[in-house]
Amino acid sequence: MNLVATLSAIVGSDHVLVEAAAIAPYLIDWRKRYQGSAQAVVRPANAREVAQVVAACANAGTPMVPQGGNTGLVGGSTPDASGKMVVISLQRMNRVRAIDCDNDTITVEAGCVLQAVQQAARENGRLFPLSLAAEGTATIGGNLATNAGGTQVLRYGNTRELTLGLEVVLASGEIWDGLRALRKDNTGYDLKQIFIGSEGTLGIITAATLKLFPLPRAQVTAFAAVASLAAAARLLDLARAGAGAGLTAFEVMSAGCIRRTVTELPRVRAPLPLASPWFVLLELSDHEDETHAARVLETILSGAIDAGMVQDSVVAASIEQSQALWRIREGIPEAHAKAGGNVKHDIALPVSAIPAFVEETNAQLSARFPWIEPAVFGHLGDGNLHYNMGTSAGTPIAVAFEHEHEINRIVHAAVAARGGSISAEHGIGQLKRAVLPEYKSALELKLMHQIKETLDPHGLMNPGKLL
Amino acid sequence: MNLVATLSAIVGSDHVLVEAAAIAPYLIDWRKRYQGSAQAVVRPANAREVAQVVAACANAGTPMVPQGGNTGLVGGSTPDASGKMVVISLQRMNRVRAIDCDNDTITVEAGCVLQAVQQAARENGRLFPLSLAAEGTATIGGNLATNAGGTQVLRYGNTRELTLGLEVVLASGEIWDGLRALRKDNTGYDLKQIFIGSEGTLGIITAATLKLFPLPRAQVTAFAAVASLAAAARLLDLARAGAGAGLTAFEVMSAGCIRRTVTELPRVRAPLPLASPWFVLLELSDHEDETHAARVLETILSGAIDAGMVQDSVVAASIEQSQALWRIREGIPEAHAKAGGNVKHDIALPVSAIPAFVEETNAQLSARFPWIEPAVFGHLGDGNLHYNMGTSAGTPIAVAFEHEHEINRIVHAAVAARGGSISAEHGIGQLKRAVLPEYKSALELKLMHQIKETLDPHGLMNPGKLL
Repeated sequence: MNLVATLSAIVGSDHVLVEAAAIAPYLIDWRKRYQGSAQAVVRPANAREVAQVVAACANAGTPMVPQGGNTGLVGGSTPDASGKMVVISLQRMNRVRAIDCDNDTITVEAGCVLQAVQQAARENGRLFPLSLAAEGTATIGGNLATNAGGTQVLRYGNTRELTLGLEVVLASGEIWDGLRALRKDNTGYDLKQIFIGSEGTLGIITAATLKLFPLPRAQVTAFAAVASLAAAARLLDLARAGAGAGLTAFEVMSAGCIRRTVTELPRVRAPLPLASPWFVLLELSDHEDETHAARVLETILSGAIDAGMVQDSVVAASIEQSQALWRIREGIPEAHAKAGGNVKHDIALPVSAIPAFVEETNAQLSARFPWIEPAVFGHLGDGNLHYNMGTSAGTPIAVAFEHEHEINRIVHAAVAARGGSISAEHGIGQLKRAVLPEYKSALELKLMHQIKETLDPHGLMNPGKLL
Repeated sequence: MNLVATLSAIVGSDHVLVEAAAIAPYLIDWRKRYQGSAQAVVRPANAREVAQVVAACANAGTPMVPQGGNTGLVGGSTPDASGKMVVISLQRMNRVRAIDCDNDTITVEAGCVLQAVQQAARENGRLFPLSLAAEGTATIGGNLATNAGGTQVLRYGNTRELTLGLEVVLASGEIWDGLRALRKDNTGYDLKQIFIGSEGTLGIITAATLKLFPLPRAQVTAFAAVASLAAAARLLDLARAGAGAGLTAFEVMSAGCIRRTVTELPRVRAPLPLASPWFVLLELSDHEDETHAARVLETILSGAIDAGMVQDSVVAASIEQSQALWRIREGIPEAHAKAGGNVKHDIALPVSAIPAFVEETNAQLSARFPWIEPAVFGHLGDGNLHYNMGTSAGTPIAVAFEHEHEINRIVHAAVAARGGSISAEHGIGQLKRAVLPEYKSALELKLMHQIKETLDPHGLMNPGKLL
C-alpha cells in the first residue's frame, strides 16, 4: 500500500487531499514568499489519527510539515519544493475539550482558532489574553509552535507563559500526554517548554491546557505624543509604577507610520496633530470600574506632562474612541502593505537599549542608503520593535528590496551588538534559517541540534525550518 | 596529579576543603535526613573556575553535586555515602553583576542569597518578588535549580517565570552564555527552560538574568474565616475578579494548624476565634495608595460576607498587624517541627479539585489510621497544598512516621487520580526519586532520560537525584 492509501485508511479518503487545486492553499505561506509542493495534505480528526499519520510517514521516511491557520510570517508551516513532504493540517482538531472556571484553565485542541479560544473564555466570564492581528485565522497550535506574542505580552506574557500543559505527537508516533492543569509542578524536566516555540521541528502539538484570567471590568486607552523614544521609555516606567499589572499595552509608533496609515486607510484618523516624532498607545485594564481606570490613567498622564515626558495626549472617552485609537496601531502593517511593503525586522532588545539603537541604526542606514525611510513601531513595553525600512518619496520601494540583504545585515548586527534578538515573536522558519548561525553561538546551536537529534533522530519533523 | 591537587590548582587550595570538620556542613541536608560523604568540597570564584572544576571532575570520572545555600527539602544538594563525589559550592559566586532599571532586569551570580537579590532590587526602587521561608540562606542558583515557588507565585509566577536568561556550565565543562535580558526571543529552542528545575542533573547554573517589577505603593492584608475549602475557593475567585493581579497572596490554613502554631510559638496570636475549620490570609498589593488598597479589600470582603463565603474577618490596620498575620502562616512549619514534625506532602492540584481531594483523602486516611490528624495549609491560589499528617492527642508522632510509606502512597495515589503533582515546589531530589516512576508515564520518563543522556552522557552531574 502506498503512503497516500495508508493515510486514507487512517483519516478517511475525504481528508487526504492530493489534487493540485485542493492542496494549493496549503502550499504557500501567508506573505506568499514561499511556494512549496507536497505529496498530500492530511487532515486528521484527533490525536490518535495524528499519531498514526506520523507513524505512517515515519515508516515511509517521508518528511512532515504541521500546519495550523497558515498565518505564520516566516514560512514555517509550508512544505519545500521537493514534492516529497506531507502537510499535516490540524484544522479539523478544533474542539474545546474542557473549561474549568474554578481552576482558570481551558483545554483546547491545536486546530482551535485563537479567536474561538478567546470567545470560549469570554462566554465563561474569563479572559484568554493572547491577542494578535491574525487571531481570526491563526490556530492555537501555531501560536504554541511559534510562541506567539502580540499586544498583551506586557501583562500576560507570551504564549509560553500562558501554557500549563501540552499533548504532543512525537516523531516516533507516540502520544505524550502532558495535559496538566497545574500552576506548580516540580517533578522533573519541564518537557512542554522544549516543544513550545520549536516550530514543529520536534513533534506535533495536538492540544494544550492554557491559563485563563478574570475579565477586567474596564479598559481605558490613551494616545500620547512624545519627543523621543527615551521619553517614551520614561513614560513606560511611570505607567508601570502607577498602574502595575494594570498596564496591559504600551505600543509605540513613529509619526511617519501614523501619517502613512492615515493616508492609506480612510477609516483611520490621527487623534492628535502629528507634530511629535513618536506616539504611544497606552491601555489600562481595571478590575474596579471605568471611573477608577480613568483616574489612574489621568494621574499617569498628568504626571508625565508635568515631567515633560508627554507633549500632548488624548484619552478615549468611549469604547468607540478606544477602538479608533487601536485602529491606528493595528492599521500600520496594512497601510504599509498597500503602499508596497517594506523591509521588515522583528527584533527585541533590552528596553534600555532601544533609544540609542534606533537613533544609531537609523543614522547608519541613512548614511549608507540616503533614500531610506524608517517605519518603526512595536511593543515598547516588551522591548520588541517592528523596525521596518521603506523609501522616501520619489524612490520606489523596489530599491529597498534590492538592498534587503544588506539592510538586514546592518540591522541584525546592531541588534546582536546590543544583546538583542533577530526574531522577537515571529520565529525563524525558512526566512531566517540561513542567518541564524551568524547570531547564535556555536555552542547554543550544537545544543539545539543535540535536542533535535534526540527527539527527531530521522529528521522528518518539519525539516528545512529553524535549524 | 590527583583530583584534589588539580582542583586546588584551579581555585586555590584555600577553596578546596577536605578536612572532615570543614566539609561536614556540606554533607548533610537542611532537614538532616540525608548524611553523605565526599572527596572534597570545591568553592570556585567564577564561572570560568566552575567550568575548569567540572572539566577536571569529568576527566577523572568523578560525580559532582552542585550546592547553593543547602536549604533544599528533598536532599537534592548533598552527596551520597560513597565518598567519591565532589561537592561544588557556588556560595563564593555572590556578585550582582548588573542591574538595569530601565529594562527591569537584574543579573546575578548563582551564589547570591535570595534576600540579597530582593534587597538589591529594592535599593533600586524595584521588586524581585520571589519570596520563601529560607530566603535568608537559600541562593538564587538553588532557587533556579528547583524552580522555587513561595508566597508570591499567584501574581508573579515560579522562579521559571521570573527568569530571562541563564549562564550554565555544561557537563562537558563548556560555558553556555544564555544571559539574555529579553522579554521576547523566538530564535529556536528555549534552552534555559531545560536547566531550570533540573536539580543540577544537566549542568551547573552559574548566573541568571531575572525580571524586576515596580514596587507596589501599598500592601494590605486580611484574615478571613471560612466554613470550607469550597468557600475559600469561591473567595479566591471573588478576590481575583475584584483585584486582578493586585491579589498577590492567597494562603489557606486549617484551624488545627493555627491552634498548633499559637500553642507552640508564643510570638503568634490568633486574630479571630478559631471557630471555623479554615482560614484564609489574603494580601493585596496596590500601585495607588493605602486608602485605595483598603477600599478594594473592603469591597471584596463585604461581598464575600454578603454571599456567605466568609464567616468572620479582620483587616490589618498597620504594617505591624500585617506582619502579625503573616507570622501565623509562616510559623506553621516551625510550630509543627517543635511538636515533633509530621508526614509531609507538597502537592499541587487543579484548584477546582482541592475541596473534594481534601475531604475524601482525609476520610480515607482516617478510616485506615484512626489516630491521624491532618495539618493542612498552603498556597490555595496556586493549587498547592502542604498536605501534612500528624497524630491526634495521645498518639505519639512516631506512630505516623512508622506508617509514612503507606500514608504517602494513599496521598500520592489520590493526587495522581486527580491529575495532580506529587511535588509542587520542592522538587524530587533523593526524597521522591524512587517513587517518581509510579506517577510519571513511562514515555515521559523515557523523554527525561533521553534529555539527561544527551546533556550529561557520562552521568556525572548530580547522580542519584531526580532520575
